[in-house]
Amino acid sequence: MASKPDVAFIGLGAMGFGMATHLVKQGYPVHGFDVYPPILERFTAAGGKAATTPAEAAQGKAFCVVMVANSIQTQAALLDGPNAAVPALPQGATILLCSTVACGYVQSLERQLVDIGRPDILLIDAPVSGGVIRATDGTLSIMVGASEAALAKGKFLLEEMSDPAKLYIGQGGIGAGSNLKMVHQVLAAVHILAAGESLAFAKQLGLDPAWTAERVIASDTDAFMFSNRLPRILAAADRTLTGPVASAVTIILKDNGIITSEAVRHGFATPMTSTSEQVYYDALGRGWGALDDGVLIQLYDAGQGKVGPLVASTAATTDEDKLKLVQALLRGIYLCSAAETLAYGSFLGMDLDQIYELCANAAGGSAVFRDIGPAMIEILKGGKPSEDSIGLRVVAAELQTAVLEAQRLKMPVFLGAQALNLIRLALNHAPKSVEKPPRALLCKVWSA
Amino acid sequence: MASKPDVAFIGLGAMGFGMATHLVKQGYPVHGFDVYPPILERFTAAGGKAATTPAEAAQGKAFCVVMVANSIQTQAALLDGPNAAVPALPQGATILLCSTVACGYVQSLERQLVDIGRPDILLIDAPVSGGVIRATDGTLSIMVGASEAALAKGKFLLEEMSDPAKLYIGQGGIGAGSNLKMVHQVLAAVHILAAGESLAFAKQLGLDPAWTAERVIASDTDAFMFSNRLPRILAAADRTLTGPVASAVTIILKDNGIITSEAVRHGFATPMTSTSEQVYYDALGRGWGALDDGVLIQLYDAGQGKVGPLVASTAATTDEDKLKLVQALLRGIYLCSAAETLAYGSFLGMDLDQIYELCANAAGGSAVFRDIGPAMIEILKGGKPSEDSIGLRVVAAELQTAVLEAQRLKMPVFLGAQALNLIRLALNHAPKSVEKPPRALLCKVWSA
Repeated sequence: MASKPDVAFIGLGAMGFGMATHLVKQGYPVHGFDVYPPILERFTAAGGKAATTPAEAAQGKAFCVVMVANSIQTQAALLDGPNAAVPALPQGATILLCSTVACGYVQSLERQLVDIGRPDILLIDAPVSGGVIRATDGTLSIMVGASEAALAKGKFLLEEMSDPAKLYIGQGGIGAGSNLKMVHQVLAAVHILAAGESLAFAKQLGLDPAWTAERVIASDTDAFMFSNRLPRILAAADRTLTGPVASAVTIILKDNGIITSEAVRHGFATPMTSTSEQVYYDALGRGWGALDDGVLIQLYDAGQGKVGPLVASTAATTDEDKLKLVQALLRGIYLCSAAETLAYGSFLGMDLDQIYELCANAAGGSAVFRDIGPAMIEILKGGKPSEDSIGLRVVAAELQTAVLEAQRLKMPVFLGAQALNLIRLALNHAPKSVEKPPRALLCKVWSA
Repeated sequence: MASKPDVAFIGLGAMGFGMATHLVKQGYPVHGFDVYPPILERFTAAGGKAATTPAEAAQGKAFCVVMVANSIQTQAALLDGPNAAVPALPQGATILLCSTVACGYVQSLERQLVDIGRPDILLIDAPVSGGVIRATDGTLSIMVGASEAALAKGKFLLEEMSDPAKLYIGQGGIGAGSNLKMVHQVLAAVHILAAGESLAFAKQLGLDPAWTAERVIASDTDAFMFSNRLPRILAAADRTLTGPVASAVTIILKDNGIITSEAVRHGFATPMTSTSEQVYYDALGRGWGALDDGVLIQLYDAGQGKVGPLVASTAATTDEDKLKLVQALLRGIYLCSAAETLAYGSFLGMDLDQIYELCANAAGGSAVFRDIGPAMIEILKGGKPSEDSIGLRVVAAELQTAVLEAQRLKMPVFLGAQALNLIRLALNHAPKSVEKPPRALLCKVWSA
């Protein structure tokens, strides 16, 4: 155990605390820093060593893990803040930046290290995914971008914190890890909202949300985020959401903002994540930023009893028919989030097969993505669309019935309406003579 | 005066009352009906005659004007409700349906008249626009679709109620009037929200909304709806919006719903009006349905003080620079609403020059529409894009600066973000080698 190197760990929030204590359990001497003193006491109790500044944690350490909330905090902890870490790091130290930041930021960090005369420091761009339990178990997904030299030094530590099957080394050096995380988060950002939107739709259709969810999860409209957020969404739907916040609205909003601001930087269109982002700002404006993101369902069902009389449905009267509308909504949204994710990756020149492998099995995963991803990748690589037994017109027809039903209920379906429009635009790329244009054709909206 | 025929007038709301009393002033004996008795008293005081049922108003009248709120009320007043009007109409009577309804509905009404054995009745599809003052003056814009025979009978009455330069006879018979109104309302629905969105953006940038508005109105980002809604938006921004409702959120939402539901029926994509519609439902859910639509600004600026600390702007520090951001937001939105309007009309096979003439000078008008409309029509007719001294890339670059600034302010810009994505998608249709793709190219998003 004595042979394991000292590690500085900056940022002991829920994820960081789990990761740092896992390293402690593996026998690493970990010197932790956080701006919130009570967490340092807990960290000491768990066998770590507490520092009162980033510099104190970093002093003399060959490895420094950073797991703060965003790029502003990263910049302060490493370079600009009082007692920043970098000046305290020894020659040839390795920084593992595990915070989720924009590719553009981590690339600028690499340049800054050179500019301030510390080109000796090795930087690894290594955002993580997987939640607190996997952080604590050392089985996270980690998305990595770094030079060969940096990887040679720091890979053992990445392996310590990750599931060996879920350590994704991207091509292209610094920024490749952040980009992998970013395209994955397209799915996460859309799917978190989709869970709330679809369950609010179910509720206003008169379905029991819990019954609906059970059926959704057992079907081709299953998705990781749907199951993951479900208990809190159901509580929020009943206005009984209390207890600790599992993930606040501001958390997913931050990742969403990275997706859209990087897209703007590159000139890429992100219709699905722009939509989710605006809704997250809407929630923020209602004062919900610090609340669990399960609360988002309330943004959709706030109108019950306020919107005036509704005409009777012509689309669905039985619970089974109503369920089909909910599933059609989700199917359309998931199809569009899959296309946006892969088209974005393609636009950035990333390895689409790696994105697929990552996304299919992580928090952004959905049955639709797993099903349609390979065909979309084929099209994005310039291949011919493969046969598709369902086809885009069927998805459009079913989704439009759901969107019209939401219109009848006078409730917003931000994502569903956007998905329908994207599918309609994609169908422009299919000649009318083609009876069954494949669903994967949706990617053509981005690459016409 | 005695030679003027008796007219039944069903629906004496703000617009209907103005139109009916104008006819009274012109010497027509008008027999009016409304479900709200006090309005009947006012109508009698103004020289009209009051009926207690639609049938009583219609009894023996050769002309029957309908100006109720929507298709449900139309169906009840004419056919399905107690004492409906149609059975009381004499052989060969002419119905002028001035309510805003979907093309699909007014076409079904024509069929229903045949089905119930009243093919003798002549129907004119004649939705109006222009507001209460012009209704009362008999100078409305009226958009008309009807058979030659119906027009021959009823045109004099349309001329009585309209500005002669603003009586637009569409091609294609019944439904052509409703479609003209509908494509016009694409502009109206988007621009009402755009006024709120842009002034909320101005406010959060630290600008004085009234000063901003004055500058906007004096520039190339002027629009009818912006000026029209301004006093109530400024009051709503100050949380001092009181007094009579000029136009409720539910009114524009109803028209918006016609646009999107007809688009769904036809399989046409309406990304701009789908966005505005979802936001209107959001407002409805907040309980704002019956409020003046000026209130919409509050949906955007509700977050002030709730969204946490903001970083300093890097895009604009002076008032003039901030104003440029507001104008860039509006320019992008107006460009996209113009393209959606004209692409929709093109998709429906309508006369684009007529749409242009109508929209340029009505409530949907904007300086951007007037400027760019002809070039868009050229492209939609299959012509080559004409030279454009501004170009789509400049619009995109300026709009993206505004959208990123809104992101910094943590406020939604539903329309601005959607516009940016549409422009980005349109730029896919321009080879990278084309330095200055024209703005009108935006239409290609719909017609790829």
